[in-house]
Amino acid sequence: MITKEHKLKDKWVGFIHSLQDDICRKLEAEDVKALFSSEKWERPGGGGGDTRIMKDGNVFEKAGVNTSVVSGTVTETMRNQLKIDGAKWFAAGLSLVLHPLNPYVPTVHANWRYFELYDKAGKLTDSWFGGGADLTPYYLFEEDARHFHGVLKGAIDPFGPELYQQYKKNCDEYFVNTHRNNETRGIGGVFYDYLKPADEFDADTLFRFQQANGNAFLKAYLPIVAKRKATNYTERELEWQEIRRGRYVEFILIHDRGTIFGLKTNGRTESILMSLPPRARWEYNHVPTKGSEEEKLLEVCLHPKDWV
Amino acid sequence: MITKEHKLKDKWVGFIHSLQDDICRKLEAEDVKALFSSEKWERPGGGGGDTRIMKDGNVFEKAGVNTSVVSGTVTETMRNQLKIDGAKWFAAGLSLVLHPLNPYVPTVHANWRYFELYDKAGKLTDSWFGGGADLTPYYLFEEDARHFHGVLKGAIDPFGPELYQQYKKNCDEYFVNTHRNNETRGIGGVFYDYLKPADEFDADTLFRFQQANGNAFLKAYLPIVAKRKATNYTERELEWQEIRRGRYVEFILIHDRGTIFGLKTNGRTESILMSLPPRARWEYNHVPTKGSEEEKLLEVCLHPKDWV
Repeated sequence: MITKEHKLKDKWVGFIHSLQDDICRKLEAEDVKALFSSEKWERPGGGGGDTRIMKDGNVFEKAGVNTSVVSGTVTETMRNQLKIDGAKWFAAGLSLVLHPLNPYVPTVHANWRYFELYDKAGKLTDSWFGGGADLTPYYLFEEDARHFHGVLKGAIDPFGPELYQQYKKNCDEYFVNTHRNNETRGIGGVFYDYLKPADEFDADTLFRFQQANGNAFLKAYLPIVAKRKATNYTERELEWQEIRRGRYVEFILIHDRGTIFGLKTNGRTESILMSLPPRARWEYNHVPTKGSEEEKLLEVCLHPKDWV
Repeated sequence: MITKEHKLKDKWVGFIHSLQDDICRKLEAEDVKALFSSEKWERPGGGGGDTRIMKDGNVFEKAGVNTSVVSGTVTETMRNQLKIDGAKWFAAGLSLVLHPLNPYVPTVHANWRYFELYDKAGKLTDSWFGGGADLTPYYLFEEDARHFHGVLKGAIDPFGPELYQQYKKNCDEYFVNTHRNNETRGIGGVFYDYLKPADEFDADTLFRFQQANGNAFLKAYLPIVAKRKATNYTERELEWQEIRRGRYVEFILIHDRGTIFGLKTNGRTESILMSLPPRARWEYNHVPTKGSEEEKLLEVCLHPKDWV
């Protein structure tokens, strides 16, 4: 029986697969040298995914653009630790993390997902969309921060004038290393979750909202790559890039809900951890020099700003 | 009022401080070039510590030998997530992680700790010792594994002939990346916890047991350092070292109880995370070449062996 809900699910799966193709093709064009390899995998509990990895490019040192369409039975662990209430679940999403070579080009992450829960009889009981994108520069260029946030805001504004501010705030509050004086991992972006079809925001509108966000991503990110990728750098900038990548690792492994969800639901470890940077460094008690560009970046991580 | 328990606490604090001095002095002698710096810190909630760090040595790329003597009120988080039942707590321990430069010299970790719990009136309600040491080689030398385990066994055997096997098994079961096909982080060692003073194993015996373990550590580790530190290596071995250090980071940030305890109890982040390696690397789906030395090491991590 094809219900309206099943159609939405199919439409969503179609969308993330074509967005994956589009993003990969455009990133390859930007990189010129490296190509994405594709690895299709199956999840023992149900479903599978398509993990696309690019490495050692001209621009991208390590990049992953994954889709997964997975489903399963709600386990005790999911019930207790992830607060998921239902008998069966379904999740489909696109998740990407791009780590460029040049320390003047920011790392970026984005994810758009759709989740369904069913009761024992297989009846749909709950469903929601989530997603977002956030930028992790190693050096701060205010015009880049304004551009990134500006494009994301432009995609969201048609759906409600108050939404960008709310999702920007969510993002600043989510991507935080609470164990590091609440330092954010970068200059943020937008982050939203549990957007459920309801009268004021129906399933079709939500779907168009997700499309608008997904389609805005490269417009927000690629112009920054193009502008910064030929900047000269030295050993010093690479060191700082590796130190900040250490913080990125800490966020992903200690705090990130998506990572924890994946590892707790018996996900494919290599696909989940593709988000980790190519290299990271830890120095005891590293503090940037007073007045340096490194300190300037850290300052906006400790005190998130409004960019648009 | 000085009770028997308070004397034990004081004796333990004295022991870990003198062991810290001894270990640091001998590691400096082995390294020849680098010295430990000491940073004494106070914990806002009670107590403090002495973090000793050596870096960029001839032998040790990054080494931390910490003591901490801390106490506080049992919080909701501790009660729920750490299953600690009481009103106030006290913990004192020595914790060390040594990351050598040469990929033929193993990374090593050791920790010996003492914990007390009190009721609202300040009366001691529970206390226990814990500890252990484990070795993380990048290349497997069976004679080194036998030596390391042999010395640890020699220290433990006088306290009970069955204990080493039990604590060796605990170690193999604890230092495991469950999200990586249950790969252990190295070739193990010993690990024990919740050793409580009881009739068959009184507080004095437990104290001597901890001393025996603490004092055996350098005898187990330094001969391996001396034997391997001048081995020639190339870029290939360094790459493998960084990949394995990535796994070390994953264990610490995802699974390690000590790290989680520290971060959840508002511990000093820089001292807790001194255990992280100087550098780590993540390559998508890295698999060692068939029949290589790298594969041989991975094999014993996937299938822990008895070494003595």
